[in-house]
Amino acid sequence: MSCCSADGTQKMKLHVLPISANSHGCLAIVKALGLEDKGLEIVDAMGKTRTEEFLAMNPCHCCPTLEYGGEKGAIWESCACMRTICQLFEGGEKYYPKDPIMRGKIDLVCDWKNTSLYPPFFHIAYMMFGVTVDEAKAKEDFKKICDEHFPVLLDTFLKDTKFCYSDTPTIADLGVAPLFTLIKGRPKFWAAVPEGVKEYHARVLEAFPGADEYFKMLDGMATAYKGDGADAEP
Amino acid sequence: MSCCSADGTQKMKLHVLPISANSHGCLAIVKALGLEDKGLEIVDAMGKTRTEEFLAMNPCHCCPTLEYGGEKGAIWESCACMRTICQLFEGGEKYYPKDPIMRGKIDLVCDWKNTSLYPPFFHIAYMMFGVTVDEAKAKEDFKKICDEHFPVLLDTFLKDTKFCYSDTPTIADLGVAPLFTLIKGRPKFWAAVPEGVKEYHARVLEAFPGADEYFKMLDGMATAYKGDGADAEP
Repeated sequence: MSCCSADGTQKMKLHVLPISANSHGCLAIVKALGLEDKGLEIVDAMGKTRTEEFLAMNPCHCCPTLEYGGEKGAIWESCACMRTICQLFEGGEKYYPKDPIMRGKIDLVCDWKNTSLYPPFFHIAYMMFGVTVDEAKAKEDFKKICDEHFPVLLDTFLKDTKFCYSDTPTIADLGVAPLFTLIKGRPKFWAAVPEGVKEYHARVLEAFPGADEYFKMLDGMATAYKGDGADAEP
Repeated sequence: MSCCSADGTQKMKLHVLPISANSHGCLAIVKALGLEDKGLEIVDAMGKTRTEEFLAMNPCHCCPTLEYGGEKGAIWESCACMRTICQLFEGGEKYYPKDPIMRGKIDLVCDWKNTSLYPPFFHIAYMMFGVTVDEAKAKEDFKKICDEHFPVLLDTFLKDTKFCYSDTPTIADLGVAPLFTLIKGRPKFWAAVPEGVKEYHARVLEAFPGADEYFKMLDGMATAYKGDGADAEP
């Protein structure tokens, strides 16, 4: 579809925090599909998510937020935005296949990311964003990721394929892999990440060169981080 | 589609915990679409989710789990299962519309349920299932639901419509509303739930009479609960 009218009032916008792993999946899809040339505008929302205007659009003040344009409202939650972009634009089926059996598996991985994989990242990573975290919880949560979540990823989702249930990357991989960069803020934790996970992480990011500047931004911040918790043992 | 071969080896199965709110959305869709008559089998997985057979199918040992049948594998995560059932079976579009703008809004609500609404229910409700919970956290988390999540539900998702972004119920409502029954395990918390939320809860459950026996099972357990935390003030 074309997402803007002649006068531009219907223009679709993707509001992002460029350094945030949660925004990276949507950015990767937008770049891979060349959607900026099709009228979708990427908006840097850093410092703007608590403005009256933003809150009127998204009371949860989070990014990514996909503003449909005109009177059609907006949605947020990274996986919901990726699903929608893939269904709205030509070529999106490549990253979110239509076959319901395959789509179900991708939806499973996306939902698992939201319910299981992501929550333990809070205490592991958010000190890098100025939040006070609990160091004991960071260790406990990293152990949970290593003992429970990495095995599900490697032994089930990646059992027979290079990407989650697929030989080519999908939105499921874009929901999961960019998060792992956050672990680099604690080098001794990163050293304990299984090689198979590191290889998967690199494989997914390399598959989306159009978003490389964003991936590098987060990687640079995490790698350079020297504050509280940076030296912690897992 | 027809989901079973003549010899039954391809039969699709929905493994559920009948009392669990997370299983109720899938059960409501299966009953509303009459899928048992189309070959989908509902399996009570109570006490069986840690068996070798179940773990081989779903290493996360949770329900609902949708077993595709044959060599096609299985998926879990309640919203992923609801999405898939609606896309596989005739009539499912009613509960998960195909229009990408509307579908995006439904996906937003489903993902918001997973990332935001559901996590605070742990300390509020899981003592009913024999888990040790933190009472101070239960109060803090209920305050979060009241201060942040109920307003998003009432003032944004339900602003202009009886159901989330829709005049008719969808999988988004089935992701959200059955959870609220859990609050009844703490009557003084339930008394503090806004009337608009209570009316919405009743409206969604009444829209799926086929799943009434399951809704009532959880309601009965929560209402009868007299253990730790039952008398707590919010």
